[in-house]
Amino acid sequence: MSTIRVELGERSYPINIDSDLLTSKSSFEEHVKSNKVIVVTNDVVKPLYLKSLLGALEGLDVSVVCLPDGEQHKNLTQFDAVTTQLLEQHAARDTTLVALGGGVIGDLTGFVAACFQRGIPFIQVPTTLLSQVDSSVGGKTAVNHPLGKNMIGAFYQPQCVVIDIDTLKTLPAREFAAGMAEVIKYGIIYDAEFFQWLEENAQGLKDLSPEHLKFVVKRCCEIKAEIVSKDEKEHGIRALLNLGHTFGHAIEAEQGYGNWLHGEAVGCGMVLAAKAAFKKNWISKSDLDRMIALIKLFELPVEAPEHMNYDIFMQHMQHDKKVLSGAIRFIIPTAIGEAVVTKEVEQDILQDILNR
Amino acid sequence: MSTIRVELGERSYPINIDSDLLTSKSSFEEHVKSNKVIVVTNDVVKPLYLKSLLGALEGLDVSVVCLPDGEQHKNLTQFDAVTTQLLEQHAARDTTLVALGGGVIGDLTGFVAACFQRGIPFIQVPTTLLSQVDSSVGGKTAVNHPLGKNMIGAFYQPQCVVIDIDTLKTLPAREFAAGMAEVIKYGIIYDAEFFQWLEENAQGLKDLSPEHLKFVVKRCCEIKAEIVSKDEKEHGIRALLNLGHTFGHAIEAEQGYGNWLHGEAVGCGMVLAAKAAFKKNWISKSDLDRMIALIKLFELPVEAPEHMNYDIFMQHMQHDKKVLSGAIRFIIPTAIGEAVVTKEVEQDILQDILNR
Repeated sequence: MSTIRVELGERSYPINIDSDLLTSKSSFEEHVKSNKVIVVTNDVVKPLYLKSLLGALEGLDVSVVCLPDGEQHKNLTQFDAVTTQLLEQHAARDTTLVALGGGVIGDLTGFVAACFQRGIPFIQVPTTLLSQVDSSVGGKTAVNHPLGKNMIGAFYQPQCVVIDIDTLKTLPAREFAAGMAEVIKYGIIYDAEFFQWLEENAQGLKDLSPEHLKFVVKRCCEIKAEIVSKDEKEHGIRALLNLGHTFGHAIEAEQGYGNWLHGEAVGCGMVLAAKAAFKKNWISKSDLDRMIALIKLFELPVEAPEHMNYDIFMQHMQHDKKVLSGAIRFIIPTAIGEAVVTKEVEQDILQDILNR
Repeated sequence: MSTIRVELGERSYPINIDSDLLTSKSSFEEHVKSNKVIVVTNDVVKPLYLKSLLGALEGLDVSVVCLPDGEQHKNLTQFDAVTTQLLEQHAARDTTLVALGGGVIGDLTGFVAACFQRGIPFIQVPTTLLSQVDSSVGGKTAVNHPLGKNMIGAFYQPQCVVIDIDTLKTLPAREFAAGMAEVIKYGIIYDAEFFQWLEENAQGLKDLSPEHLKFVVKRCCEIKAEIVSKDEKEHGIRALLNLGHTFGHAIEAEQGYGNWLHGEAVGCGMVLAAKAAFKKNWISKSDLDRMIALIKLFELPVEAPEHMNYDIFMQHMQHDKKVLSGAIRFIIPTAIGEAVVTKEVEQDILQDILNR
C-alpha cells in the first residue's frame, strides 16, 4: 500500500492507495469517530461496491443514502435531500459520512459534511479515475449553481482518502478518458518527466495495468498533496490546478451539467489554454503539439462545442471564481511542466482561439 | 468608542461599539477588500438604516439585497436567493458582504459569505440587542432546517463587527426583551457580578439609557470574545453559551420559526434548565428564584407553550447539535455565574419539569 500524507497541521490526513482497500476493515476503523456511519453513494456505484464497503464497516451502525448519478444532481436540491435524510436518521456531530463514488458524490458529500451541524467527519472513497487523482484530495467541496460551477462550497478536509484502484476495472471508457484529462494536467503544470512517462506508457494505462494505474494515481496524489499543503485556500500556487477549468467550466455550464463530463471539458479547456500560450509566444510549437497529441491520444475532445463563440465563453467566464476586481485570471502553460496565473490574455487572442 | 478583539490568530477581528458608527466611513474603510460591496438587509431594517449605511460606503460600488423579515426566512431557499443575486451582480472572491440587520440577517449572510465561491469577506452590522450581544460575534453562521434550528451552517468569522447602539432606539419592546434573554445568560453562566448589576439596573436598561446600553453590550461582547477565543469550534467551554438553547430550539421548531422569538425561547429554556438544576440539588432555591425573577422582570415568558410535554420536547431535542452518540447534553447552571455541560439529567426530572 502507498500512503501519502496531506500536511495541514491538525487537519492533516492520509491518502491510502492499493488494490482491495474497499473491502478491508482496517481502511476505515481508525478514522470513524463513533459507532454511527452514513454512506452516501449513487445508483450506479451502489450495485457495484456498496456490499463490499458494508462488509468493511461491519459492526458499526451504518445507513445508506443513495442519489441519482450525474453532475446535473450536484446541486442545492440534492444537498437539502441528503441533509434531511441525515436528520431523519438522527445523525449527530460525531457521525461519520462516507462518500462512495466519483467526483459528484465526493464534492456533494464533503459539502454536506462541512455544513451539517457546522461540520462532521467524512471519509472519501473515490471510485473513478478523476476523483482518485484529483477531486477527493485537497478538501475542495461544492455544489453547482445554474449560473456557475462549484459556486457554493467550502474548504473542508476529510479524515482520510481510501483509493481502491480495483474500482477502475468497472469504469466506462469515457469516464476513464475524462480522468486522464486531470492526470495530464499534472504533467503540464508541474512535472515534465511525468508528462513524458504518460506519452510513453499510454498503452499500459489504457489496458488498465495495475502497476501503471498505481503509479499514476500515486504520482498525481503526491503532486496534489504537495500543492495543497503549501496553499490550502488557493491564495497562490493552488490556482495552477485549475488549468483548463476556466474554459472548461464555461463549456459545462453552457452545455448543461452532465452532458460534457467534467474531465472532457477540462481536456478541451487545456487545449484552449495551450493555444492562448502559443499565440502569446509563451510556449513553443513542439510543446503545443505534444500537449494536444497527448490529450487526443486518450480520446478527449480538443474542440469546443461548435456554437460556442467568444461572447458565449465570456458570459460564463465572468462568474469564474478566479475573477478578481472584474478581471478574469487564466492559467496558462509556459512549458511542459510549468504554468502561470495571468490576467494578460488579450481580447484579440481570446477571440482568435474561441471564434471559429 | 470601545473596541474588543476576538483573538483567533489570522482570523482575529475587532468589535467596535459606540453611537453613530453606522454613519461613519471609518467604521468600514479598512475592512472592505475591494471596490465592490453588497449589503444584505431586510424590509424592516432597510427603511430605517440603509440610507445612513450607504452614506458611510460612499465611493464604493455598492448594491443591495433585501430579504423578507423573520426567522421563518432563515432557510436554504433564501440562501439560494441571495447566492443567485450575488452571481447576477458578478460578485467575486474579493467582494465584501455587509449584513445589516438582526440575527437572522447576520446568520444567513455569514453563511452565504462562508460558502459563496468557498468564502468571501463579510462585515456584521447588527441592529438588534440580541445580535449585538450574541449572534454577530463568534462566527457561528447557519440557516434552519424544518427538522432543527441552525442545522446547516459554518464557523466563519467576519472582518469586523460594527455595533451602533443608536439602532436600539427603534427596536420594538418585544425584540429588546428577547435580546435581554441572551444578556442575562452571560450573567448566569459566567459573571455573577454582572448578573447583580442587571438586577440593580433593570430600569435604566428599559429606559434605553445610552450609558447602560453601552456597558451591557460591551460586557457581553467581552465575555463572548473571551470564550470564543478559547474554543472557536465548541469542543469545550463554548457549549456553555447554549444555556437555554436546547429547550429553546425545541420550542422554536415546534411553534414554527418566527412565532416565538429566539430570545423568548431561550429565556424560557433557561428557566427550564434552572428548574432541572434545582431538582438535582445543584443550585439553591434563592439562586433559582433570582434567575426566574430577572427573566420575568424583562417581560420574557417563563412557561413553555401549554401543549408541549416531555414527548414533544424529546422529539425535537434528539436533533440537537450537542447530541453525541445518542445522548443529549444539557447546559445546567450550578450557581449564578457558573454552569456545566452534562448528560446527567434523569428522565424523571425531565418529565417533571416538562409535563404539567
